[in-house]
Amino acid sequence: MACCGRCFCCQCCCREGETRTPEELTILGEIPDEEQILPRKDYESLDYDRCISEPYVEVLEGMDNKKAKKYEAVHWMMVFAIGVTVGLLGLFVDFFVRLFNKLKFTVVGDSIEKCSDKGCLSLSLLELLAFNMTFVFIASVLVLIEPVAAGSGIPEIKSYLNGVKIPGIVRLRTFLCKAAGVLFSVAGGLFVGKEGPMIHSGAIVGAGLPQFQSITFRKIKFDFPYFRSDRDKRDFVSAGAAAGVAAAFGAPIGGTLFSLEEGSSFWNQALTWKVLFCSMSATFTLNFFRSGINFSKWGSFQLPGLLNFGEFKCPDGDKNCHLWTAVDLAFFVLMGVVGGLLGALFNCMNKNLAKYRIRHIHPKAKFIRVLESLLVTMVTTIVIFAASMLGECRDLSTPTAHNTTLAGSEDINSTIRQFFCSNKTYNDMATLFFNPQEAAIHQLFHQDGTFSPVTLSVFFFLYFLLACWTYGVSVPSGLFVPSLLCGAAFGRLVANVLKVKLGMDIYSGTFALIGAAAFLGGVVRMTISLTVILIESTNEITYGLPIMITLMVAKWTGDFFNKGIYDIHIQLRGVPLLEWETEVEMDRLTASDIMETNLTYVYPHTRVQSLVSILRTTVYHAFPVVTENRQNERDFMKGNILISNNIHFKKSSVVSRAGEQRRRCQSMKSYPSSELRNVCDEQSAAVEPSEEGEDLLQQMLERRHAPYPNLYPDQSPSEEWTMEERFRPLTFHGLILRSQLVNLLIRGVCYAENQSSTNQPRLSYAEMTEDYPRYPDIHDLDLTLLSPRMIVDVTPYMNPCPYTVSPNARISQVFNLFRTMGLRHLPVVNAVGEVSDLGFHASSKRVRKPQSCCVMLSSPTQLFFFFFFFLDCGNNHTTQFNPRVPDGQTATALHHHLTQLPPLKPPPSLIAF
Amino acid sequence: MACCGRCFCCQCCCREGETRTPEELTILGEIPDEEQILPRKDYESLDYDRCISEPYVEVLEGMDNKKAKKYEAVHWMMVFAIGVTVGLLGLFVDFFVRLFNKLKFTVVGDSIEKCSDKGCLSLSLLELLAFNMTFVFIASVLVLIEPVAAGSGIPEIKSYLNGVKIPGIVRLRTFLCKAAGVLFSVAGGLFVGKEGPMIHSGAIVGAGLPQFQSITFRKIKFDFPYFRSDRDKRDFVSAGAAAGVAAAFGAPIGGTLFSLEEGSSFWNQALTWKVLFCSMSATFTLNFFRSGINFSKWGSFQLPGLLNFGEFKCPDGDKNCHLWTAVDLAFFVLMGVVGGLLGALFNCMNKNLAKYRIRHIHPKAKFIRVLESLLVTMVTTIVIFAASMLGECRDLSTPTAHNTTLAGSEDINSTIRQFFCSNKTYNDMATLFFNPQEAAIHQLFHQDGTFSPVTLSVFFFLYFLLACWTYGVSVPSGLFVPSLLCGAAFGRLVANVLKVKLGMDIYSGTFALIGAAAFLGGVVRMTISLTVILIESTNEITYGLPIMITLMVAKWTGDFFNKGIYDIHIQLRGVPLLEWETEVEMDRLTASDIMETNLTYVYPHTRVQSLVSILRTTVYHAFPVVTENRQNERDFMKGNILISNNIHFKKSSVVSRAGEQRRRCQSMKSYPSSELRNVCDEQSAAVEPSEEGEDLLQQMLERRHAPYPNLYPDQSPSEEWTMEERFRPLTFHGLILRSQLVNLLIRGVCYAENQSSTNQPRLSYAEMTEDYPRYPDIHDLDLTLLSPRMIVDVTPYMNPCPYTVSPNARISQVFNLFRTMGLRHLPVVNAVGEVSDLGFHASSKRVRKPQSCCVMLSSPTQLFFFFFFFLDCGNNHTTQFNPRVPDGQTATALHHHLTQLPPLKPPPSLIAF
Repeated sequence: MACCGRCFCCQCCCREGETRTPEELTILGEIPDEEQILPRKDYESLDYDRCISEPYVEVLEGMDNKKAKKYEAVHWMMVFAIGVTVGLLGLFVDFFVRLFNKLKFTVVGDSIEKCSDKGCLSLSLLELLAFNMTFVFIASVLVLIEPVAAGSGIPEIKSYLNGVKIPGIVRLRTFLCKAAGVLFSVAGGLFVGKEGPMIHSGAIVGAGLPQFQSITFRKIKFDFPYFRSDRDKRDFVSAGAAAGVAAAFGAPIGGTLFSLEEGSSFWNQALTWKVLFCSMSATFTLNFFRSGINFSKWGSFQLPGLLNFGEFKCPDGDKNCHLWTAVDLAFFVLMGVVGGLLGALFNCMNKNLAKYRIRHIHPKAKFIRVLESLLVTMVTTIVIFAASMLGECRDLSTPTAHNTTLAGSEDINSTIRQFFCSNKTYNDMATLFFNPQEAAIHQLFHQDGTFSPVTLSVFFFLYFLLACWTYGVSVPSGLFVPSLLCGAAFGRLVANVLKVKLGMDIYSGTFALIGAAAFLGGVVRMTISLTVILIESTNEITYGLPIMITLMVAKWTGDFFNKGIYDIHIQLRGVPLLEWETEVEMDRLTASDIMETNLTYVYPHTRVQSLVSILRTTVYHAFPVVTENRQNERDFMKGNILISNNIHFKKSSVVSRAGEQRRRCQSMKSYPSSELRNVCDEQSAAVEPSEEGEDLLQQMLERRHAPYPNLYPDQSPSEEWTMEERFRPLTFHGLILRSQLVNLLIRGVCYAENQSSTNQPRLSYAEMTEDYPRYPDIHDLDLTLLSPRMIVDVTPYMNPCPYTVSPNARISQVFNLFRTMGLRHLPVVNAVGEVSDLGFHASSKRVRKPQSCCVMLSSPTQLFFFFFFFLDCGNNHTTQFNPRVPDGQTATALHHHLTQLPPLKPPPSLIAF
Repeated sequence: MACCGRCFCCQCCCREGETRTPEELTILGEIPDEEQILPRKDYESLDYDRCISEPYVEVLEGMDNKKAKKYEAVHWMMVFAIGVTVGLLGLFVDFFVRLFNKLKFTVVGDSIEKCSDKGCLSLSLLELLAFNMTFVFIASVLVLIEPVAAGSGIPEIKSYLNGVKIPGIVRLRTFLCKAAGVLFSVAGGLFVGKEGPMIHSGAIVGAGLPQFQSITFRKIKFDFPYFRSDRDKRDFVSAGAAAGVAAAFGAPIGGTLFSLEEGSSFWNQALTWKVLFCSMSATFTLNFFRSGINFSKWGSFQLPGLLNFGEFKCPDGDKNCHLWTAVDLAFFVLMGVVGGLLGALFNCMNKNLAKYRIRHIHPKAKFIRVLESLLVTMVTTIVIFAASMLGECRDLSTPTAHNTTLAGSEDINSTIRQFFCSNKTYNDMATLFFNPQEAAIHQLFHQDGTFSPVTLSVFFFLYFLLACWTYGVSVPSGLFVPSLLCGAAFGRLVANVLKVKLGMDIYSGTFALIGAAAFLGGVVRMTISLTVILIESTNEITYGLPIMITLMVAKWTGDFFNKGIYDIHIQLRGVPLLEWETEVEMDRLTASDIMETNLTYVYPHTRVQSLVSILRTTVYHAFPVVTENRQNERDFMKGNILISNNIHFKKSSVVSRAGEQRRRCQSMKSYPSSELRNVCDEQSAAVEPSEEGEDLLQQMLERRHAPYPNLYPDQSPSEEWTMEERFRPLTFHGLILRSQLVNLLIRGVCYAENQSSTNQPRLSYAEMTEDYPRYPDIHDLDLTLLSPRMIVDVTPYMNPCPYTVSPNARISQVFNLFRTMGLRHLPVVNAVGEVSDLGFHASSKRVRKPQSCCVMLSSPTQLFFFFFFFLDCGNNHTTQFNPRVPDGQTATALHHHLTQLPPLKPPPSLIAF
């Protein structure tokens, strides 16, 4: 690969002063493996968990079944609106791509037919070049405006559904650039599809439409505050992405399964039903308008998706014709293997190319990217033109009856090209190259006239290389159609060999289809959804088994070498994707092995000054709300309102069995006739004295001994703290998000030291979520408005009962909970109570009893869930297990290395303390 | 409904001494609403959670990637085997049903044609009666052998996938009775389908095949211990049920979605892919053999499922023909409404009938059920015969071209009946009644010759009533085909009216299909999977939207009145099904409101005698392993090995932040170059003294004051305990199942008082699971083998880190965790540490400090998760919220009443203690 030359070149470039992020360097393999890989700070994790804070509980309690139904109705309407919008978007894309293509091919085709006699073919080439380069230039400029609009968008949407937000990925500006850009990149003759961008656009519609606001155009802001949470947004993005697939392939069920396969970890019946409805709406909106516009048959539904494969059908009279037989299955398996190998090669080449781009093109001025697009366009155009001149002239087959009924597409013979050929013959290469890709696929699937094996081989080879080069150029570019076309050529080639050389009685179209499936499967490695999408696109349920087997074999073969193309690009972007399951060997570790142990926390009542300093000095997106456990709280309570508020809160928040039972007895007393009453009376009599409550508590507290010397600190641990203070036992009360804290500070939610905490202003749920999705930054806060000595009571706004795990829980349990529930933060809480009262004395300061302990997987992104392990103790253990990451940074890859180790069990003597 | 008469009659019956379970009485509305509804004790809950006990960890640690792959390969093979078996089963059923039907209709048809001239029709009727009653008698006798083989089996499978096991539902005997019975009930001319029983049979294959053992035939027992856990079994049952659907309808995707919709709460990509593969295998195995046998075309695939709808297709030449247009959608919506209404009526009637059966037929001798089946058969046969005589004679349409190509089914005109009609005409009623139901559906969908509106109405009416009566008779009986047929008649009627009366240009077949969908949707109320099943059965993707809209409208309309038929039957059986989501208003409650507060627990080290008494006196299926928190453990430890073992365990199991940090520092020391090292050194220096560990601990413990007067009890709370002892703070260490405890006792896993606990014999994972799925009962235990003073150390076998929730968690959170993770027991653990040391003195015995508290939703069945609430505190609160259950006992229904209340917040003064 001429690596040395490149490296040298790279170093030259590097000297020119451009900077590169650490993970880019790692990906490029240019730094020693021992160095840490940091996730990109600009990837944010999404939080699917609900924060059941007091404002939210108010909303919940105001919610009755009637309101819930109304809310549900709005939800359905939104889903329908998304579907229709995506359908219309598909119509728009389809219409303009057709228009541009028609214009281009008419002008250039005419010119060629004229020139093939006159010998002015270079003029035709120039015309074609002019068309293509103009179109691609526009597409490329659009991508310059919004760089995330490049590529297919599927990796980004997959990341989003997985829980990682790439900035700008669901913005209106991205939508506009993507939707307009894909028109021009497809019309520009590049070997790209419009399906991927359709899916991305659909997802943006899903994310944006129910928000009724836009960040790109700030004026778009209606007062419609529903659905403004990650949880709701992700549901809509699922629906939108599914609608995108549905519109692109006319595959509503496939779309639904796509969004399930790529994103959702929790199967929710109601949501799935809505997603299916959304997909159906999109397909049929598109179908309705396309049928109306193209055939003037308004009200009929004949053109399901942007891409459909036509009807596979034996000639009516031919009783011996079968689309496929059991014998063919063996060939399909072999084709699956070859498809998997070809796909792996494609991915490998594309990956190296992408690395090269990251290294050499991205750091340079942006117009270089435009130049690259234009270069690709030029080469593609010239190759198309040159290859077409080399095509064979073949006899036109007599139009057979069964092909004329091709539902919803032009007659198959209307798209053949006769360039450079005499009458009654056609140019097979030109037929494939000088047509929109969909028409070429139709030709390969349904054209009875055979293509010569040479033509098919050349076509496959050129297409493979050019498509591989094109994917990653900075234009909106899908990969489905090029892969299908490439694979179809391969399949048709196999069919030719079997039919002509071996004289087998097979249906060529089926082999072309299976070839397409094998290659596409080898490239993208999707399983369930791709099977269903292909079945739906062919509208032939009997293809289910062969497609499925082919995809399965292709996936298994390909996985032997590398990952699917989307996963590769996700990896190259450094997105911390969560896999479906943990590796088996990871179960040797427990939560305590991977948790963050250096905890930054807040107290229920904290001073503004402490909060601001915590927020400014850390990057965590959530903080546990804790209280400290001390021996002599009574003394602290005196005179210090902050501390006594904290201690009071702790006491009141403990739900105990005795208290619970008492409460029940209390309400039982009002119940007249139950034999349980006597039991209860006896019990409550026994407890009665305690109902003097506070008084008795006071007495107990008076009996304390040995006052604790320090003041009660209202700050998080600092470096100067002793070991003992650092690990003071904490009690976990809840979780508060950074955004919530900043919100509280900005809105001045606090009370003065001489006031009661009930004087603190209360925020409603609407106020808490008003700024979604971009909460203000702590650094934008104007501190002059707040007195630093004021106290914030965070308890009404925290999540009092997030899901937690025990430190002993195995990684697979932790991971399942984390992924399934869509969490962003997962506190690891030691549920074990106090070992025993060690009778702490002021003199024995150096020993500190580990009581209830609360350690926390808090993180700026989901990523840190795993990565903090490396930041924290990974370094420490390097000699033991060398956390080298050969090629990328997904959690699993890391843990694969981790798990080479024996389990990290501490010696019993240590934890016996 | 003549209720009084019935009630009186019932009381007469009751006096005759038959007993009835309480929930039967409740269902029948015969007891006052205030009384409690108990779940049936014989419904067991399934446990989908893994118990990560030490034997399992050994298995885990012995598992490397290679072994995991081997295991995975076996899994795939099993899935394939299930698919093929279900396919062959479908073949078997299909073959014999066809054979019997052919025999019957040939003999009877000949007889009728002869007799219609001679006037000996009563003879023909007798022949038909003889055939039908013989067949149904056999089916009915088979059901007598295994009563759960009655009905469609879908409610049972739905319950199983939801997590409730109905006894005998996945046994080999049930399979044999069901598979053989359905042949005869279908052949016997009853208005039943074979699709439901196919699904049930498929599920049994899935459950049984990978077990390699049988309870029915004890000799079938290979040494193949994989997959013997609820978790694995449920996966295979999903696959088997999906394969059943796939074989029945030729709908592999629909089958996959069926098992997702009905059962899985967790979307697992790998599992779904396997399920789809299994479904595909089933469909194509069936397809291969049916095509081979019926058409002698081995290797082609032309007959996808047992039920398929033929090809909907416009005549080739007709350009104006559309299967449906946008205008038709309006009619489809209306038909959906009517279908929903009819379905609701059907369900209501069937429910009352089922109640009547529970009341009057089930308590009587079993042969009464056989008599009922015979009665139904007789009435059905006579009605069929009589109605056929009343049919109109209509002209034979000229066989049109497009119907002759009907892929994979007989020519549509071969199944028309000419009874009592002259040449060139046919009897429309007889055509519908005197055919297998599938042929009748084909007639309604595809026959060009119209049926008269009167015939259709009469047919619909008779079929509706008879199908309603038949469903619930004790023969294996599916509901899909009768509903489809009934609905198709309705749809065809609508089409007739629109076409003839209004002169609209519509495609009758589409209307028949939509009518069928509407009625079926109104009856079963399935959504996603039914849509996909119908789309796949028609093999026409363009029907997606109309089918979906119709089903949606039908479901909404029907849900206005009652539940789906399967849910009704689940309700009548008293199965505690978990809904998808909690009601909105339930979120006013928290976990502490619904938890079981009277806890039965075991200690880490417990005497055999205590364990036996706990196991014999309770019905719980799991027990929390807890230790008690006392002030003066040091004193107890002296001289009592049991107590000191318990206390030692408690100490060693605490994972603390300080301990964790120390462990990391320890391993860091061996790491040469890190700036962190200094920090760590300083830290560990500070902690160093504590590493003398036990010694220091001893010293601390010496300093204790005020010895606790009682002996350390090794028993669970008893009635004589004081309030104080009852609510002694507990520390939660893990969860142990009843089956595990019994297993330990039976295998003599214990140690003597004078031994160390390390002398206890160790069980391997294989030994722990050997008896799955029927663990021995505690009452079978021979106690003479065990000394009651021996001590059992349960800690290696417990699940040390089950998922837990905080008492403050909202019901929706608790429910999501419980349902998604497939739990059976969910400990509610107070994660809050000690409030403060209240300085407990022996004198103030009456107040007991609530420290760490562990309360537990432990239950014999999942049901109790909700129901214990009622058993325990429901009674207490009756005056407040009257937990009346009007009609059934699902959790949601109960909670709907619960949530009429204001939230149950205790007064602050009570919990401040």
